Amino acid sequence: MTLLQRADGHVVSFATGSTPANALPTHVIRELSSVVLAEPNAAALNYGPTEGERDLRAAVLELLAGKGESVDEEELLITAGGMQGLDLVCKLFVDPDDLVVVESPTYTNALSTIASYEGTVLEVPVDAEGLRVDRLSQLVSQAGRTPKLIHVIPNHQNPTGLTLSLDRRIALLSLAEEWDALILEDDPYAWLGFDGDQLPSLYGLDIAGRVVAVNTFSKILAPGLRVGWVLAPPPVISRMRAAKQGMDTCTNVLGQRLIAEFLRSGLMEAQLDHLRRDYREKKDTMVAALTVSFGDLAGATWTDPAGGVFLWLQLPPEVDSNRLAIVALEHGVAIIAGTAFSSREEFAHGVRLCFNSPHKTDIPEGIRRLRAAFDQLYGPG
Amino acid sequence: MTLLQRADGHVVSFATGSTPANALPTHVIRELSSVVLAEPNAAALNYGPTEGERDLRAAVLELLAGKGESVDEEELLITAGGMQGLDLVCKLFVDPDDLVVVESPTYTNALSTIASYEGTVLEVPVDAEGLRVDRLSQLVSQAGRTPKLIHVIPNHQNPTGLTLSLDRRIALLSLAEEWDALILEDDPYAWLGFDGDQLPSLYGLDIAGRVVAVNTFSKILAPGLRVGWVLAPPPVISRMRAAKQGMDTCTNVLGQRLIAEFLRSGLMEAQLDHLRRDYREKKDTMVAALTVSFGDLAGATWTDPAGGVFLWLQLPPEVDSNRLAIVALEHGVAIIAGTAFSSREEFAHGVRLCFNSPHKTDIPEGIRRLRAAFDQLYGPG
Repeated sequence: MTLLQRADGHVVSFATGSTPANALPTHVIRELSSVVLAEPNAAALNYGPTEGERDLRAAVLELLAGKGESVDEEELLITAGGMQGLDLVCKLFVDPDDLVVVESPTYTNALSTIASYEGTVLEVPVDAEGLRVDRLSQLVSQAGRTPKLIHVIPNHQNPTGLTLSLDRRIALLSLAEEWDALILEDDPYAWLGFDGDQLPSLYGLDIAGRVVAVNTFSKILAPGLRVGWVLAPPPVISRMRAAKQGMDTCTNVLGQRLIAEFLRSGLMEAQLDHLRRDYREKKDTMVAALTVSFGDLAGATWTDPAGGVFLWLQLPPEVDSNRLAIVALEHGVAIIAGTAFSSREEFAHGVRLCFNSPHKTDIPEGIRRLRAAFDQLYGPG
Repeated sequence: MTLLQRADGHVVSFATGSTPANALPTHVIRELSSVVLAEPNAAALNYGPTEGERDLRAAVLELLAGKGESVDEEELLITAGGMQGLDLVCKLFVDPDDLVVVESPTYTNALSTIASYEGTVLEVPVDAEGLRVDRLSQLVSQAGRTPKLIHVIPNHQNPTGLTLSLDRRIALLSLAEEWDALILEDDPYAWLGFDGDQLPSLYGLDIAGRVVAVNTFSKILAPGLRVGWVLAPPPVISRMRAAKQGMDTCTNVLGQRLIAEFLRSGLMEAQLDHLRRDYREKKDTMVAALTVSFGDLAGATWTDPAGGVFLWLQLPPEVDSNRLAIVALEHGVAIIAGTAFSSREEFAHGVRLCFNSPHKTDIPEGIRRLRAAFDQLYGPG
């Protein structure tokens, strides 16, 4: 696991958006595990309901109510992380050759999951306001058929860090209605806006029952517990519940009960505050380091996200970021080349940089190494 | 949850094969959680490898070696319980309209999972030696095409409790070879033979790479942790690993590490001894109670399993066990009607009785109530 080692002579990793170890509330979870495993009837170790543990379901509804989203119990399904939510939506709604819209660039695993159900991907570009809804209309016209599903990561998108504007959210809902399409709102970073502010979710704005929202505790609490949740109209939840039963019976009960207890104890607000503060500092550090190390390079631009865990670096068009990634690793910095975020292997001169997982003090050195790798391949700008 | 309450004026449940609370090692797991959550880098709360935690993988291989099965690391994938193993096999190998052989009767969720991938089920009867391989040949001939997949629960089968004989295991492997078919060895009860003895697994007997074995800690340790494993030839494991990544990224890490620590601490042997002794006593109690309460009823027969968690009661052909289940509940005993174990709703006069989850002392009363319900519907035998 060299990639995850510290910069004391080793590699600085900007490759994965894993929560840094010091932001995982291990001590608290350890204390809570004593509480949860002392419950009568060994309930934390036995099977639980497929739809999720009652206490966790109640706590999630309360969490949502706290940010002004009023959701009924019948609209909620607990899942094994956000990934299972994605898989469930695709399993139920993507048949072979169905047209599925995705942002371009987008989350690698979303592309794999859509491919695993043999959906046909339609990539639509993003800009500073997120998915380009104008291009979406044009591309759908050109395709000569309407999409079945529209996958969108509305907040602090993977890999660009950009957020879909309110106007575009409304326009997207209107297109979904026109096309009789479903929107898959894939929203793991909603809670990680540095200012704590959030635009209304597509799920909250929707009045036509056209949105399934996939959420997770992976980015805000503990990915290793593999607990997430899905919001959808009750008939969809009911089908998803049946499908989930045939996938894993129920989500691991111990993890669910630990998170329920964490939420019940009122610890989430402090956890989110800590993450937002930590990630904002790291993002600022990375943007400053990019200005120092790449500010002189004509054609290099980067996003400056208002939340989340990554930003997107665009290098001059002649750059092959797959080659760059290899040389960068030799220089002691790990990155993911842009082609990973497109089914057509576009974005060869793009790079995803995760700012949340390295130590803050390692970030400038990591960016310097990236520039050194670039210079080795392409000469100083 | 009335169904799971004790017989103090409430319902005796023979409906589910859940591990009884007193057989779940809650105290030990609680202690181990302090150990596991004290590990450096908060590893139990972060993402882990899709193929499973290294320590758990090593411990599973050692567990298998202990019963004489030598398996390579490349043949192993950790899953979210046995259910995910089943789902993965069907996702990779069942295309719409593929012929899939199942035992008849068989595990309800296996039927649902096969149906979710639109496989065509071919039900083959079981007798005291398990799947009738002779009938399998005939039925495949009649079908006019060979099966893609053969699902079999070889040990203490759900719902009959019966075990596939060694001769039939060998014959089944030979048919799979002849038909170029894959065998899905669904084996959650392998470790629950009352004498501790096991026949060689199909996976162990296979020399042609035609078997995928699905196993789980759910029936021997703690279902709520949702941890199981799959054995298969390395190229199959490699495809399953990729598919699993798009399903849930990885199995919950905390549960995996708890089980690894449990195994490492050498606690499994005592756990299995306890379960085998407890379940044997309960099975003996149930068989004795059936003899007392149904011994006089012409046409009533029941299996007497050598392990596992359930037995199968056959009532006279005129019985509608769905009606019986409703009336039985009014009498204070929960059962599952036989039709749940067939895609064709056969076995209307069959009943699955789980003997492991009720208190031993409640079993005779539960069986008496079942007879009272029978008498109410059909008159005393």
